[in-house]
Amino acid sequence: MSGLFITIEGPDGAGKSSVVKRLEKEIQKITKTPLVVTREPGGSEIAEKIRALLLDPTHTNMDDRTEALLYAAARRQHVIEKIGPALKEGKIILCDRFVDSSIAYQGQARGIGIEKVRAINEFAIEGKRPDLTIYLDVEAEIGLNRIKDKNSNRIQDRLELEEVTFHEKVRQGYLTLIKDEPERFVSIDASRSEEEVFKDVWQVVSDRLKK
Amino acid sequence: MSGLFITIEGPDGAGKSSVVKRLEKEIQKITKTPLVVTREPGGSEIAEKIRALLLDPTHTNMDDRTEALLYAAARRQHVIEKIGPALKEGKIILCDRFVDSSIAYQGQARGIGIEKVRAINEFAIEGKRPDLTIYLDVEAEIGLNRIKDKNSNRIQDRLELEEVTFHEKVRQGYLTLIKDEPERFVSIDASRSEEEVFKDVWQVVSDRLKK
Repeated sequence: MSGLFITIEGPDGAGKSSVVKRLEKEIQKITKTPLVVTREPGGSEIAEKIRALLLDPTHTNMDDRTEALLYAAARRQHVIEKIGPALKEGKIILCDRFVDSSIAYQGQARGIGIEKVRAINEFAIEGKRPDLTIYLDVEAEIGLNRIKDKNSNRIQDRLELEEVTFHEKVRQGYLTLIKDEPERFVSIDASRSEEEVFKDVWQVVSDRLKK
Repeated sequence: MSGLFITIEGPDGAGKSSVVKRLEKEIQKITKTPLVVTREPGGSEIAEKIRALLLDPTHTNMDDRTEALLYAAARRQHVIEKIGPALKEGKIILCDRFVDSSIAYQGQARGIGIEKVRAINEFAIEGKRPDLTIYLDVEAEIGLNRIKDKNSNRIQDRLELEEVTFHEKVRQGYLTLIKDEPERFVSIDASRSEEEVFKDVWQVVSDRLKK
């Protein structure tokens, strides 16, 4: 028995959370296989504590490589405590972000390098790769505008323009990963409405579950 | 201007702390170069928080690789905030444990593998290697007996016998590292009295400071 490991990836504002919520409902309608929904960074007690360090807003002097190592440490614990055992029990795992996020954000956008970040994550996951990764593709500007619409209606300032460049790099990171492993990724145009996006996502996931 | 980076290494019970304390006093007597005494894991605010996660006794389910990644993350922040800047300012750094500890403990004794632990630490330190490493060599049984003498007089039980095997592996890890980099290490027989050990340590360090 071996489960199915699905990850959802994409830049900020791509709509990952809503896709995960809807997938959770729909998957349970069509299969009796137990489903585990989880997220990164986090997913276990120790990993949540590492997450708290990562997200603490007072840690403005945290170095990019420290950040990458902490993400990898949280991921390791998540794989050992939750993902690995669930897969062994034949469950379906639906995970919001995984290694690809680290490679796109820290490796590509922060400039550490894709191969270097991949290597420390290989150390962490020891081959526990997703069977299927849904990549929600959205241009930086559209994604960021969605986040801003949610929060406020500020005028775009210098920092926010830098953000566009940063998020464009994140997207480029993802696109490189997809070229490297086209068989694992399904890229979905997430610039459309939630309904349209989910329809395509569900097509892919339900097909996979029927296999 | 570039400083001098000295690390003190050895298995538990080798007498590192007392050597560091005495070195701190003696170094300041013979040079006006500022001295920074620090320790691992720790040495910066973020690194101390990571240290707290590592040493929390409730984290009994922390995986060996999570541990190795957290040590590397704490080390990265220590290098960025403290060791790197001090070396740049021409200071002397005296550090109680560094990368070699991770390689000996996690790499060799916990069985992750020397090369794997070295690689994640290379990611963390980016070439900031010690100029001189004093290795205090002591057999596992002698080192462990010293620690026990300090704490209590219990009879050796099964767990403590396992401890001897573990600490012997730690020592083997160090001995492998010394073979790989004989020019960086000075190995000192630390099974002798504190006075005798320090005499040899001081000979090496004072010679180096006079260069």
